[in-house]
Amino acid sequence: MNSYGKLFRITSFGESHGPAIGVVIDGCPAGLKIDEAYIQSELDRRKPGQSKITTQRKESDTFKILSGVFEGKTTGTPIAIVIENEDQRSKDYSHIAKSFRPSHADFTYEQKYGTRDYRGGGRSSARETAARVAAGAIAKLFLKKYNVNINAFVSQVGDIKAPHYSDMDLSKTEENIVRCPDSTTASKMIALIDEVRKDQDTIGGLVTCVVQGTPVGLGEPVFDKLHAELGKAMLSINAVKGFEYGSGFEGVSLRGSQHNDEFVNEGGKIRTKTNHSGGVQGGISNGEDIYFNVAFKPVATIMKDQQSVNKEGEATTVKGKGRHDPCVVPRAVPIVESMAALVIADFVLRNEVSKLR
Amino acid sequence: MNSYGKLFRITSFGESHGPAIGVVIDGCPAGLKIDEAYIQSELDRRKPGQSKITTQRKESDTFKILSGVFEGKTTGTPIAIVIENEDQRSKDYSHIAKSFRPSHADFTYEQKYGTRDYRGGGRSSARETAARVAAGAIAKLFLKKYNVNINAFVSQVGDIKAPHYSDMDLSKTEENIVRCPDSTTASKMIALIDEVRKDQDTIGGLVTCVVQGTPVGLGEPVFDKLHAELGKAMLSINAVKGFEYGSGFEGVSLRGSQHNDEFVNEGGKIRTKTNHSGGVQGGISNGEDIYFNVAFKPVATIMKDQQSVNKEGEATTVKGKGRHDPCVVPRAVPIVESMAALVIADFVLRNEVSKLR
Amino acid sequence: MNSYGKLFRITSFGESHGPAIGVVIDGCPAGLKIDEAYIQSELDRRKPGQSKITTQRKESDTFKILSGVFEGKTTGTPIAIVIENEDQRSKDYSHIAKSFRPSHADFTYEQKYGTRDYRGGGRSSARETAARVAAGAIAKLFLKKYNVNINAFVSQVGDIKAPHYSDMDLSKTEENIVRCPDSTTASKMIALIDEVRKDQDTIGGLVTCVVQGTPVGLGEPVFDKLHAELGKAMLSINAVKGFEYGSGFEGVSLRGSQHNDEFVNEGGKIRTKTNHSGGVQGGISNGEDIYFNVAFKPVATIMKDQQSVNKEGEATTVKGKGRHDPCVVPRAVPIVESMAALVIADFVLRNEVSKLR
Amino acid sequence: MNSYGKLFRITSFGESHGPAIGVVIDGCPAGLKIDEAYIQSELDRRKPGQSKITTQRKESDTFKILSGVFEGKTTGTPIAIVIENEDQRSKDYSHIAKSFRPSHADFTYEQKYGTRDYRGGGRSSARETAARVAAGAIAKLFLKKYNVNINAFVSQVGDIKAPHYSDMDLSKTEENIVRCPDSTTASKMIALIDEVRKDQDTIGGLVTCVVQGTPVGLGEPVFDKLHAELGKAMLSINAVKGFEYGSGFEGVSLRGSQHNDEFVNEGGKIRTKTNHSGGVQGGISNGEDIYFNVAFKPVATIMKDQQSVNKEGEATTVKGKGRHDPCVVPRAVPIVESMAALVIADFVLRNEVSKLR
Repeated sequence: MNSYGKLFRITSFGESHGPAIGVVIDGCPAGLKIDEAYIQSELDRRKPGQSKITTQRKESDTFKILSGVFEGKTTGTPIAIVIENEDQRSKDYSHIAKSFRPSHADFTYEQKYGTRDYRGGGRSSARETAARVAAGAIAKLFLKKYNVNINAFVSQVGDIKAPHYSDMDLSKTEENIVRCPDSTTASKMIALIDEVRKDQDTIGGLVTCVVQGTPVGLGEPVFDKLHAELGKAMLSINAVKGFEYGSGFEGVSLRGSQHNDEFVNEGGKIRTKTNHSGGVQGGISNGEDIYFNVAFKPVATIMKDQQSVNKEGEATTVKGKGRHDPCVVPRAVPIVESMAALVIADFVLRNEVSKLR
Repeated sequence: MNSYGKLFRITSFGESHGPAIGVVIDGCPAGLKIDEAYIQSELDRRKPGQSKITTQRKESDTFKILSGVFEGKTTGTPIAIVIENEDQRSKDYSHIAKSFRPSHADFTYEQKYGTRDYRGGGRSSARETAARVAAGAIAKLFLKKYNVNINAFVSQVGDIKAPHYSDMDLSKTEENIVRCPDSTTASKMIALIDEVRKDQDTIGGLVTCVVQGTPVGLGEPVFDKLHAELGKAMLSINAVKGFEYGSGFEGVSLRGSQHNDEFVNEGGKIRTKTNHSGGVQGGISNGEDIYFNVAFKPVATIMKDQQSVNKEGEATTVKGKGRHDPCVVPRAVPIVESMAALVIADFVLRNEVSKLR
Repeated sequence: MNSYGKLFRITSFGESHGPAIGVVIDGCPAGLKIDEAYIQSELDRRKPGQSKITTQRKESDTFKILSGVFEGKTTGTPIAIVIENEDQRSKDYSHIAKSFRPSHADFTYEQKYGTRDYRGGGRSSARETAARVAAGAIAKLFLKKYNVNINAFVSQVGDIKAPHYSDMDLSKTEENIVRCPDSTTASKMIALIDEVRKDQDTIGGLVTCVVQGTPVGLGEPVFDKLHAELGKAMLSINAVKGFEYGSGFEGVSLRGSQHNDEFVNEGGKIRTKTNHSGGVQGGISNGEDIYFNVAFKPVATIMKDQQSVNKEGEATTVKGKGRHDPCVVPRAVPIVESMAALVIADFVLRNEVSKLR
Repeated sequence: MNSYGKLFRITSFGESHGPAIGVVIDGCPAGLKIDEAYIQSELDRRKPGQSKITTQRKESDTFKILSGVFEGKTTGTPIAIVIENEDQRSKDYSHIAKSFRPSHADFTYEQKYGTRDYRGGGRSSARETAARVAAGAIAKLFLKKYNVNINAFVSQVGDIKAPHYSDMDLSKTEENIVRCPDSTTASKMIALIDEVRKDQDTIGGLVTCVVQGTPVGLGEPVFDKLHAELGKAMLSINAVKGFEYGSGFEGVSLRGSQHNDEFVNEGGKIRTKTNHSGGVQGGISNGEDIYFNVAFKPVATIMKDQQSVNKEGEATTVKGKGRHDPCVVPRAVPIVESMAALVIADFVLRNEVSKLR
């Protein structure tokens, strides 16, 4: 279904070229002050056309709150947000209406539903993530009450990698268009994306996210472990192929004696000396930094012609056209943060009932 | 909570050293023949004491079906399965009752619940996964009706890696105790685990899983993408740190023109020439092999002494004792398969209502 | 939360005097033809100002589909419907902003949320039911594929009662403004409502609903019995105080030998001779008519002054003003049908996976 | 499915004549002291063979806790409770294996699942309610922390009615075997049940439940109204045909001016002068007594022979035999209380997150 979260719960709707996309946020506690300018600024971080290394398609992504907010505060009732699709000009979609674009969802939607809205990918378009960012902005406003801070950034484009997050100043992420806090790496990334774009091709990348200030105790043992839910949330973002937290895939090569995080008493607060656990132990936050990596494949839409088949199973050529992102990660940064915020907010609420008061 | 799945749904219960662990399977369609010997054989693949490279603790893991099966077939009502804990001998737990073992869930449980069942890790013990394997065995029986085949194997221990799955005969996985289909690699893995065990240490590893024969159309767009749910399921297994499917983290470095899977008509069936997509496009299965990697950290319980703190925040030493696995991946293979089966079975049912009949 | 249904699932949003109300329908199978004129006609049956015995407030209740429908058919993605609130003129709400209207939700909302949108009752306004009717219309279109027919009517106003449903022609329900298929009874009901209205008072009533053509097998044993879910759905409608199905409260006085419905073979079809069961046995539909009664209390808003207290707990007088229904049941008929349709549609989908195919 | 509740959630399993029935309680907060003697005393109120007016079948209904309780307190992990079926003697079920008993679930189960466990009704047997009572006892222990008191009693058998609850001393309910607090009425009820039993027949009845001490604010607007969920919970109990709360069906005949509950300030506490609302306004508790009626039909199993059909659709006679209750309401009293406790406990937890702290 199209809902996510148990207590802080969102329901997303809308297609790329329908009248509008939107989201209903159900379960946001009453009394939260809603800063509309902040929500718009988050949407602006995701919107197309924001720089030379993103798609040049234009959408203002102006949102409207239809319910759930009264006199500037949440009332405890569902918050419905709608974003109209402006770029709905009548296009010629014949090149994709009957053909299956390689590595897109055209074929699978057609098979699953017996039909599909082919205009711009319909529901499978990454345009849907605008709804997540709007909802995520409200989750972030909620988490500010708990002093939780969420910062994502681009840590890799192609083979160009940024330093470890602890060696960078995360406040500098927004200082360049690729959203990498290290300016030297950022320049190289931008150059690579530009080169790829000129090649009419696309390239993959990595987004790293760091959550700081999380209270101890978030996450539910067994199936709804904090990192399992973060993993699902990230893997649900378009083009994501992998998720790792803490020591991640590199941890495989380590020995227990190297990997274990010893507990220490730091001025009355129990902390760990190292943080291979990535802030989560037994599926529950331990108060240390939660950090994880999200792998994005290269965007499937390329400007080159590709071989494929049509509905009838006949060989056909899919023409490269349109305005698309040569690399998705710069615009993915606010999406990763939003999904993280939605997961953490949900677990904050869920944790309210873990023990008798 | 302790439930997983939407239509094919399991609820797990039980602590490591309580009277029993178990699972309730709700939503398994009526009329499925239950092969109890098969369920036991699956539990045997996971049980402790099965070889020299696993923990030497003994549990027969004999299960009992309490409900939901009549005259050898499922009735459509909940199937409750109980596995008694045999190894409940009264032990001295004082070394962990008040101390927090590094990289275990002791500290986080204590903080979250204000209390914890410290005997053998209680609910956070990997013993809970026996419940998953029992349920997974039933999911596998169900999937046989759809000709879905699930095969996991150990693809890495420490730095020792197996060949790509397409270059091995997956039917050989059970031929050695480390569960790697390539016998040469298997020998090296076993030697490494043995060495690590003698060092009183532990080591991480990778499990790869291949799902073949999946019908086209499984998975729900947006949040409940097939791979997102597989990711959550895997990340919910104890000691898992990462998940990737298809091209995974390596896909980050590729270009779209390399990564895209072109469609071809193979004797009337639409297939893809390559399979970087890992059998999933737009969150929905396309009929190709679904394959993914699951990263396991080194087991946290080591035989060496470690520094830590106790409940009062005082420095203490956690003594290494007990009988534990030097490497978790050989026993994790059936767990990974079980969670995959539960996810696929759930999506098979969910897909029954995707379009008008 | 504000969602209802498991597979055919709706999420409702909106306040009486906010910008709009609406609903997201998630899980409607792909391929269903959407008849927009029919949806509007259903909304028109519920809308205010439709006759002299309803409130004279005017709302056109024009709806707009934002997503999920393409080329006239559902695509399997969420269907978002929005109805703008036209009657938002800036009113003086001071009489209720700080006072608690007797038998309204003012006091309980204020206590639960620490705040409330007091304009026209906000979320607690029966205006929310327009969202249900829009969604219910789509559920009805879906159920037409299964030949399920749902007919509700007014069976009692005050002490004036209609004959048993089997003694009336249910196709005549829409022939009078009170929606009672028996014209003689209808005239008396209309006269009573008119009298009550002139008294500046309100009166309660009963809606009876008959569902015909339901396939055998709908409903889930134990908690989600068909009649239990119907009961919840009806009790969730504003002003409802009771629900009974089949023999209902009168069945209490009967003996088993009178009440039991004997099975007979009617031309190859197994049926029951009588239908005290109301079409549901063991929580599952048996193919006979499902019929139930829904009791509505008199509308709480009356034109007379009433004693109450304000937020500060001081005695105050709540002035009778505004435009309200003297009796809610005529407009409740389509709401009852809609909620029934949503429940039945959900169970139709849920039943698709009850047994192996 | 077989689960109920959102945060305080139970999953029930088991058939009448299988090895055991049981329940898993998930979401009970950690730190609750579990009084096992109390749980048993609640089960004893429900068990068969307790008096001359109930079935003479014998079951001790001894329960065993398998998990979730450590050192006498809940740990926050799932509490699994199992009750073995003792009365499993090999019986001759041929009279029902192939025939459909009138007003039982035989026919509908057979149609829905293509099979059924016919021994003693299998899953459709009221034996399943023992699982609810065990879980309900834990919910009651939890609610004691909030000073919530739940008292149900038999208010009607056939046409014999007890006085209004406010005119009786509810602490006297357990003083007689029919569980009516008024001893004169109780004697008449007992005599009637005895007469009906001698007639080899059965009779219906009413259970009234009063919940006192509920905090203000429980219940969720729109679909999950407090009374809607109570209604579903009650209607999910075997043999229930109707539910009403507060003024209920009688409220239909009243006028708004009679029905409205005026607010008054009673020593600093806002209360209502009357309580036609039954303690719930807008779906949310207002702190007044919550009271409701639950209508039970006469038990379907009678000792007289009845006409029916078999699986092949041939006419057959269902012989009256076995040991069954002539009237279900005396044993239903603890079931009604248990379901009420489970609903209230769930809403207590859900209300913890309604507003910012």
